Amino acid sequence: MKLTGIIAYPITPFTKDGTQPDLNKLAHNIELLLQNGCDAIAPLGSTGESAYLSFAEWQQVAQHSVQVVAGCVPVIIGISELTTEQAIHKARFAEEIGADAIMVIPVSYWKLTDDEICGYYKAIAAEVSLPVMIYNNPATSGVDMSPELIVKMFRGIPQITMVKESTGDIQRMHKIHQLSSGELPFYNGSNPLALEALCAGASGWCTAAPNLLGMLPKELFSHIQAGDLQAAKENFYRQLPLLSFIVSGGLPKTVKAGLALKGVEVGQPPRKPLTAANEQEIATLSRLLKQILPE
Amino acid sequence: MKLTGIIAYPITPFTKDGTQPDLNKLAHNIELLLQNGCDAIAPLGSTGESAYLSFAEWQQVAQHSVQVVAGCVPVIIGISELTTEQAIHKARFAEEIGADAIMVIPVSYWKLTDDEICGYYKAIAAEVSLPVMIYNNPATSGVDMSPELIVKMFRGIPQITMVKESTGDIQRMHKIHQLSSGELPFYNGSNPLALEALCAGASGWCTAAPNLLGMLPKELFSHIQAGDLQAAKENFYRQLPLLSFIVSGGLPKTVKAGLALKGVEVGQPPRKPLTAANEQEIATLSRLLKQILPE
Amino acid sequence: MKLTGIIAYPITPFTKDGTQPDLNKLAHNIELLLQNGCDAIAPLGSTGESAYLSFAEWQQVAQHSVQVVAGCVPVIIGISELTTEQAIHKARFAEEIGADAIMVIPVSYWKLTDDEICGYYKAIAAEVSLPVMIYNNPATSGVDMSPELIVKMFRGIPQITMVKESTGDIQRMHKIHQLSSGELPFYNGSNPLALEALCAGASGWCTAAPNLLGMLPKELFSHIQAGDLQAAKENFYRQLPLLSFIVSGGLPKTVKAGLALKGVEVGQPPRKPLTAANEQEIATLSRLLKQILPE
Amino acid sequence: MKLTGIIAYPITPFTKDGTQPDLNKLAHNIELLLQNGCDAIAPLGSTGESAYLSFAEWQQVAQHSVQVVAGCVPVIIGISELTTEQAIHKARFAEEIGADAIMVIPVSYWKLTDDEICGYYKAIAAEVSLPVMIYNNPATSGVDMSPELIVKMFRGIPQITMVKESTGDIQRMHKIHQLSSGELPFYNGSNPLALEALCAGASGWCTAAPNLLGMLPKELFSHIQAGDLQAAKENFYRQLPLLSFIVSGGLPKTVKAGLALKGVEVGQPPRKPLTAANEQEIATLSRLLKQILPE
Repeated sequence: MKLTGIIAYPITPFTKDGTQPDLNKLAHNIELLLQNGCDAIAPLGSTGESAYLSFAEWQQVAQHSVQVVAGCVPVIIGISELTTEQAIHKARFAEEIGADAIMVIPVSYWKLTDDEICGYYKAIAAEVSLPVMIYNNPATSGVDMSPELIVKMFRGIPQITMVKESTGDIQRMHKIHQLSSGELPFYNGSNPLALEALCAGASGWCTAAPNLLGMLPKELFSHIQAGDLQAAKENFYRQLPLLSFIVSGGLPKTVKAGLALKGVEVGQPPRKPLTAANEQEIATLSRLLKQILPE
Repeated sequence: MKLTGIIAYPITPFTKDGTQPDLNKLAHNIELLLQNGCDAIAPLGSTGESAYLSFAEWQQVAQHSVQVVAGCVPVIIGISELTTEQAIHKARFAEEIGADAIMVIPVSYWKLTDDEICGYYKAIAAEVSLPVMIYNNPATSGVDMSPELIVKMFRGIPQITMVKESTGDIQRMHKIHQLSSGELPFYNGSNPLALEALCAGASGWCTAAPNLLGMLPKELFSHIQAGDLQAAKENFYRQLPLLSFIVSGGLPKTVKAGLALKGVEVGQPPRKPLTAANEQEIATLSRLLKQILPE
Repeated sequence: MKLTGIIAYPITPFTKDGTQPDLNKLAHNIELLLQNGCDAIAPLGSTGESAYLSFAEWQQVAQHSVQVVAGCVPVIIGISELTTEQAIHKARFAEEIGADAIMVIPVSYWKLTDDEICGYYKAIAAEVSLPVMIYNNPATSGVDMSPELIVKMFRGIPQITMVKESTGDIQRMHKIHQLSSGELPFYNGSNPLALEALCAGASGWCTAAPNLLGMLPKELFSHIQAGDLQAAKENFYRQLPLLSFIVSGGLPKTVKAGLALKGVEVGQPPRKPLTAANEQEIATLSRLLKQILPE
Repeated sequence: MKLTGIIAYPITPFTKDGTQPDLNKLAHNIELLLQNGCDAIAPLGSTGESAYLSFAEWQQVAQHSVQVVAGCVPVIIGISELTTEQAIHKARFAEEIGADAIMVIPVSYWKLTDDEICGYYKAIAAEVSLPVMIYNNPATSGVDMSPELIVKMFRGIPQITMVKESTGDIQRMHKIHQLSSGELPFYNGSNPLALEALCAGASGWCTAAPNLLGMLPKELFSHIQAGDLQAAKENFYRQLPLLSFIVSGGLPKTVKAGLALKGVEVGQPPRKPLTAANEQEIATLSRLLKQILPE
């Protein structure tokens, strides 16, 4: 599995009464992402409100996503669990339904030591044969994995073959590149760092932006591949105001609101205590979208 | 409900196979805390690995704790949930089984706005008639509630009558005191701040320390009540090395290890990915305990 | 030299054209502090705009302060210099004019290693026979000295006999107490921490507050000495709004403005780029002063 | 003045007794930088120990640098002063001796408000007719200027025409680009960010690296200009270990040690309390230099 390009994150739409995922709307959302040139689909990430779903709901979303994508591109299933046991349940399920990889992020209540983190990944990897992408995002998970730890796990656990770095700190990508002699592919998970991460050698960009920005993310990747730095820069600065806005506003809320503005049915707002975008946020989104994609 | 003194946190022991709470050992642990002069019992806090239990396990521990305490002192049930819905389920259950209060901490995956936090507490308070203690501990929950927000919720939601402040920042306690004109009782949740928080007017100290330090925490509180600052200071500096150690090592791990050293049965280690204390940690604990409580 | 109580910081008034220190006004300011019960005078601290004076001006202020105090209480001269050489010049001058001690803070442009900091103090101590107070205030100096380093220097350099801790972190005071077995006297340099630092065993409080709050700081110290925690708490919460205000607004600006409101002549505003308090700040100061000291 | 490319920072060598700048060695150092393709020379920056020099020494270094460069490339004189008055003295001197621009960084003891910072720049700009480069480096100066403030000053003070951003935060460069509609040229002052800053549109790279790495910095710039991202990436990762080392070790110490290893006479070690590189640091430098520039 040699993944490059845009790894896209669907939302998880809910049915009218908010009690369960709306699988039809989910399918529609995934198809939109495929039309926008995405190279892989990652349901049940942060954007997909994975942390707010029951296990049964999580299973439904995972299974339906694999069915909808139907092998067009790889499907990477997100797993973020406090206990090792529950993470293993999800990993096994992902394998059973035919997912191509799992993206795993440990979650903290109590801070985890490096040994505990290592144990978490080892225990999961021992139960499945899927490739594992380490996902580092201390801002949401409370767990911060250093480049040193990440590369050590890459060296010690064969199934770990990719890392998604979402701290927004480019020096961590440099360090991963150096410590692994360029052997561990890293993916950018911080939207406002997309240009620089790709210039620094990221294999791809994990992002919910194709939900709202169409082909722009894919085109940024292509410009970099083609060595056209000037076009890449123009593309990036065009996208940047929206990228910054959806990150600072919270992805589930802003992406659902943005899709609604574009006429896509997204179902209920994010799960409480998360709230829907307010009028001012919707107005800003609307202005940014018109500015970036005029007609 | 006018709570003062030491609010003690039991551990959650697990049965041999690690699959469920060991209710007998839990009862024994609670009795130990009552013998050590504690003024309230708070099961299912951070020390009690609340975040790592299934809902059914959480229910068992809550119910059994209320039964064991049997009205001797108030029981305050800890609730830390990502979704408002699940927090409400737990709050209702706490009320049904006869708990005296609930201690509620919002948990973040996505950062919560002040309005979202407020909505979370309002929704819970609307469903039960128990007193609610706001619990602020950004280091574990990822949610940081400012003194301004806390006092605003105290003014607007009648059931909120107490706040446990665990940031370790004494200026926040000053601010809560000032903003509420001294009307909102605050409790210290940062062990190494116990002396100063009580000097600054904290109504009590929420702590797992009585598990290991016997009557010392209660005596510290009594010295302050009696205005004997010199004795309080001596007591505190005596306790401090252990307080610092259990906080930096993680409470479930270090408290379980310390209880075991004292001959108390604690069952299995904390839930994975958390691990048991290692040899070096046990040696340090042993040395500290002997030094503080010589015979 | 066994210093306890309130160590007070005068301002440095400037003459009408702003070109030099106004020594008459300085004398008047020092007398005011002595009337307010202060136990030591520390000219040329942060409040005294030491960093903004030429060497000649610094010398004038130091010499005149010693003359005005005239042995009533100890005079501690502040030294904050980037180069070791210039710090030594000042230390020698302080000794020549009969100061009782020097309070020394290293200043960074380039971050200093622990060895460099140690070398700085050793080189200064080698040139004078005065007692040296270590002054730790990373917020102004850019140099952060850990409790471990401070106690190590205390053990290794005989002239170091005191430490002023201004980080506002009570845990550092605990650590200094523990690491030095209570042998290194520590003084609180963070105004909003005064109550707790004294409760935790601080020998004194280094503060500019007696400029504006009269006997209140001294009375706080006396309440703690007498073990009257209730009176101490009331005194502290009364002072606190002003203490917080002068710290967040910057001491030279707010203390000069506050003294002017009280009818004390303070000469020109602080040296540029520092500015005078604006109208809103003066209004707040006026309100706070009336509230705390009504008539 | 349309400056692009590599803006190089000489060291300030000292004479044998350490009491004054060694102007011959300085000249030699500047010539080396010119041979290494640098597009401008910036004496008296952080690398040049500007903060540790007396005014007279600063004047000597400034004047001699202008003479040695002799119009080959622009000379940008660094000014970092606590008081506005002293900054003005230096600015005037720079103009008198024929410097091409000044690079000005406010230094804090007391934190400066945005208005105070603005006043500082305005007062300096009013006294000279040279172009002014804003230099933002909170790690050394203690003053943090937001992109908003920087662009506001650029709009309001005509002489401000460039900004050197040294925080290492690429998002600040994005913001400066966006807020100024691309009109304010920004220069990268964080060595380990060089690749990404140039990709994001930086006009140049302010660096001491050409002292040790010869033409490599200039070649990185040329690769980016030519749109050869692959070559740029290889060049950058080759340089990076040394860039990281000199930044974390402190530039005056490591650059002087590295030059000495290359056989360049650098005079005395940095001014105390700064120290010379120790044996281990020299060994690491030696290894890195051999690895990067083999023969």
